[in-house]
Amino acid sequence: MGQSSRTTVRRLPERGVYGRESINAILDEALICHVGFVDGGQPFVIPTIHVRLGDQLYLHGSRASRMLKCLSTGIPACVTVTLLDGIVVARSAFHSSMNYRSVVVLGAAREVTDATEKWTALERLVEHVIPGRWSDLRQPTENEMNATTVVAMAISEASAKVRAGPPKDDEDDYALSFWAGLIPVSLKSGQPQPDPKLPATIPVPNYVREYRCGQQGP
Amino acid sequence: MGQSSRTTVRRLPERGVYGRESINAILDEALICHVGFVDGGQPFVIPTIHVRLGDQLYLHGSRASRMLKCLSTGIPACVTVTLLDGIVVARSAFHSSMNYRSVVVLGAAREVTDATEKWTALERLVEHVIPGRWSDLRQPTENEMNATTVVAMAISEASAKVRAGPPKDDEDDYALSFWAGLIPVSLKSGQPQPDPKLPATIPVPNYVREYRCGQQGP
Repeated sequence: MGQSSRTTVRRLPERGVYGRESINAILDEALICHVGFVDGGQPFVIPTIHVRLGDQLYLHGSRASRMLKCLSTGIPACVTVTLLDGIVVARSAFHSSMNYRSVVVLGAAREVTDATEKWTALERLVEHVIPGRWSDLRQPTENEMNATTVVAMAISEASAKVRAGPPKDDEDDYALSFWAGLIPVSLKSGQPQPDPKLPATIPVPNYVREYRCGQQGP
Repeated sequence: MGQSSRTTVRRLPERGVYGRESINAILDEALICHVGFVDGGQPFVIPTIHVRLGDQLYLHGSRASRMLKCLSTGIPACVTVTLLDGIVVARSAFHSSMNYRSVVVLGAAREVTDATEKWTALERLVEHVIPGRWSDLRQPTENEMNATTVVAMAISEASAKVRAGPPKDDEDDYALSFWAGLIPVSLKSGQPQPDPKLPATIPVPNYVREYRCGQQGP
């Protein structure tokens, strides 16, 4: 597990946590990541779905995607996931903050060309977003596989950063009469909405009815 | 409002929406953004708080922050915000997707050195996260202002991308018996948690008790 100088959390080092387990848990809980890459001297940050399998992070999309074309060439990239946990209501503006868990992965991607690895990555991408869905959908055709690019990035240079707990105010500020505390925030799922074109005879499957954000696995 | 070739949504162009109002609404609703920049040839993507004021996007942080030091030099940057709205449960793996609203802003930042502009940006950053808070906290001291860097980026080259609505399956797949529809997801706030060090005599203010994600303004 690389904790290189590039991924060492420089400021507020108490917020840096580097264990592989912490990093994996954050990557696994997040529904989306933000991918950074450079094209023509301009950095781009694009949201997309990811899944972690062992020490590899997989992304996918259309073969026509600029992001995937760029990443496939093996240029330096950055994949960041962020889970918001709360708003830190400190007594001072200066110590007002957010509780969050984030992971930054640096590296170069490779295009996944092995048919088995590519199929497995797509299966796990679907299962990452909705556990239980892969065996209850129409799986990809050869044409669809050909229209899809999958890239993988080794999670070899990565760091996690976490802020948790109540505000940390200046000692003198605790005597002030402003309210202070946390407002928890989290991604929540709502009531499933059947496709208007769905026959009423098709029941909501358990994995949809019982779906909860934050219970994603790898 | 610039819709340059760099920010034109190339793939799935029906998902591209370019109006300034759509872009502003997405920037204003998002609690955090992801900032992309390059340092030493490596792209980095860092989550942070932002606020939009007119056609300017403001970011802030410690004067020691690598991100802000880099951005202050005026290098090319990218600020992306993403709001997740739902999981699109299509009949096929290929059309499985997410509903979301995202904005990509390209440009170069400048350090905000004017004292009034800097103070206003910090005030609006606090108010963006918790409307009503600025007048009910301990405002920044001169030392705190000096320890804080604020940068601004003009929202001149920006695009929004939105997916909404039910799955769009292949015509033949509508006859399949798999469930299809949407699982809505959104960021929700929970019950405020007073700081353990808060005297019980200080009541929860209305702007905290009635706090709801997604009601942020600029």
